[in-house]
Amino acid sequence: MRATVIYAAGDVRVEEVPDPVIQQSTDAVVRVLRSCICGSDLWPYGSKSASEGPQRIGHEFLGVVEDVGRDVAGLKAGDVVLAPFVWADNTCDFCREGLQTSCRNGGFWGRDGIDGGQGEAVRVPQAQGTLVRLPVGEDAALLPSLLTLSDVFPTGHHCAATAGVNPRTTVTVIGDGAVGLSAVLAAKRLGAERIILMGRHEVRTDLGREFGATDVIAQRGEEGVERLLELTGGDGTHTVLECVGLKPAIETALAVVRDGGVVSRVGAPQYSEVAMDSGPFMRNITLTGGVAPARAYIDELLPDVLEGTVDPGRVFDRTVKLDEVPEGYRAMAHREALKVLVQ
Amino acid sequence: MRATVIYAAGDVRVEEVPDPVIQQSTDAVVRVLRSCICGSDLWPYGSKSASEGPQRIGHEFLGVVEDVGRDVAGLKAGDVVLAPFVWADNTCDFCREGLQTSCRNGGFWGRDGIDGGQGEAVRVPQAQGTLVRLPVGEDAALLPSLLTLSDVFPTGHHCAATAGVNPRTTVTVIGDGAVGLSAVLAAKRLGAERIILMGRHEVRTDLGREFGATDVIAQRGEEGVERLLELTGGDGTHTVLECVGLKPAIETALAVVRDGGVVSRVGAPQYSEVAMDSGPFMRNITLTGGVAPARAYIDELLPDVLEGTVDPGRVFDRTVKLDEVPEGYRAMAHREALKVLVQ
Repeated sequence: MRATVIYAAGDVRVEEVPDPVIQQSTDAVVRVLRSCICGSDLWPYGSKSASEGPQRIGHEFLGVVEDVGRDVAGLKAGDVVLAPFVWADNTCDFCREGLQTSCRNGGFWGRDGIDGGQGEAVRVPQAQGTLVRLPVGEDAALLPSLLTLSDVFPTGHHCAATAGVNPRTTVTVIGDGAVGLSAVLAAKRLGAERIILMGRHEVRTDLGREFGATDVIAQRGEEGVERLLELTGGDGTHTVLECVGLKPAIETALAVVRDGGVVSRVGAPQYSEVAMDSGPFMRNITLTGGVAPARAYIDELLPDVLEGTVDPGRVFDRTVKLDEVPEGYRAMAHREALKVLVQ
Repeated sequence: MRATVIYAAGDVRVEEVPDPVIQQSTDAVVRVLRSCICGSDLWPYGSKSASEGPQRIGHEFLGVVEDVGRDVAGLKAGDVVLAPFVWADNTCDFCREGLQTSCRNGGFWGRDGIDGGQGEAVRVPQAQGTLVRLPVGEDAALLPSLLTLSDVFPTGHHCAATAGVNPRTTVTVIGDGAVGLSAVLAAKRLGAERIILMGRHEVRTDLGREFGATDVIAQRGEEGVERLLELTGGDGTHTVLECVGLKPAIETALAVVRDGGVVSRVGAPQYSEVAMDSGPFMRNITLTGGVAPARAYIDELLPDVLEGTVDPGRVFDRTVKLDEVPEGYRAMAHREALKVLVQ
């Protein structure tokens, strides 16, 4: 079959790889219907060293079960299923606490000999715990929105949920990428009435407004901070959802959070330290968030997607075929596309 | 009257200062019955530069109301009252949210012309919001434990409460100073069954055991981390209460917290950055805590102190007269005394 392999920064190829087969009794093999490219895929696309060797890539996909190992209950060939962006047994203590990203028997797609999602099919380890059956057909119009449940929408939700967003909290979202926009949608869904989106790409912030942003700040750095404080009577907002992962973004987050407030971050940190010095200490600022345990939120978010109450699939603004995945990476890296769906 | 003035590192004097009088209609004047020396007083005692000029000091006291301004309701001369370690109106939005440390009309003792607590009397601004009436006499045996409600016990409680300590969480407390021991007591009071105290002063950790610590780790640094991981099956604890404020302490905290867990800090940070890099991010670690809004917790903690369910005053292991305050600082700085009561 064909699948995507990353060789080095800027060097993504779709090539022939071995067909996946059941290797362990807890495996399933899934034929991929839709996958996509994640903002976090752009980190290796921007910096991977060729000396690390080629690696399968892609961690968001949904598809059709083709085969299951003998210890996989509740799934059969033909089921349409969603895979969260980590695989997990969903039975260990961490999983039961809703932290499947720390599963004692789980791991990440595309590492340690595990397939990536940007391919024709995937061997899914811990299939019973990992896969979620979707009550839709292979050609459902909802597939793009359902696919976002694999990562980007639960990641936005994780950011809002760990920040404690509710109808009484004001919210700042930093970043107008697909995660930032998903965080806007999640904050709105959790009842926030004031959502200030910091981003400077008008097409994206326009979608942010449709998702629920009440204000948009295009300025960055000190100017952006000043503007936000102006909008909030000098106080900042109760919660700040940091959806970028770069040092200036986390610095802005600390500058615009209200005393007693929460900065939640879901952008994979491209920095090593955060200035949690006596300033945030005297203001009782909490720093939370992290990699999102998507699986923990799917049961809650799925009904809203099925009913069309939310339409997180609108973050996809380009669709490519598997062979065109390298062009999809290029378009996302150059900000020509917000998020690329692979069909 | 006499009061304590700090001139520079190591130079604390008790000297004659003007008697306090009502200056604003919201003031009260309180004659001090008991005050004490805080671990945080040791920071200026260790590093204050003489060029900053002399400053009144002390932020924990209880006493008897001598006079009140005409806008102070609910308090009258003769009332025994407790002062939390910040003064606050207790009516602004931050105060109503329980964050009196960020009061819009409040401030800190010993700054900007406000008296310090280590003296014979204190002018109390925003007296109606600041002072808490105590249903005891001037000579109550409970005065030391009641005095801890001014700072050290609510600070330990803030650390445990913001960490989310409950009967199902395991707890590490870093630091065997008065705040660390108070955090042990607070965690026990909140129902924690496993409390691991990291500290190396046996007299103190012995009191920690009486307060509720189930395990004590005397080793520090990597050795201490290894020992803690050994005790917790390699996982660390759900919550870590960091009661020191030095860089190695916050580093240890991040190393011993379980995936998905919370590090709460109440030791005033003597560092500028925290390594909240991709490690804690992938493990979904939350960093919370800060300066404790003692006032917010007094209503909850006071009944337990009055009933003797908890005895936080046991952290006082030396009593001095006002004239002996300089000796009290010396003893605490040299770790000869855990916490010094001023009578």
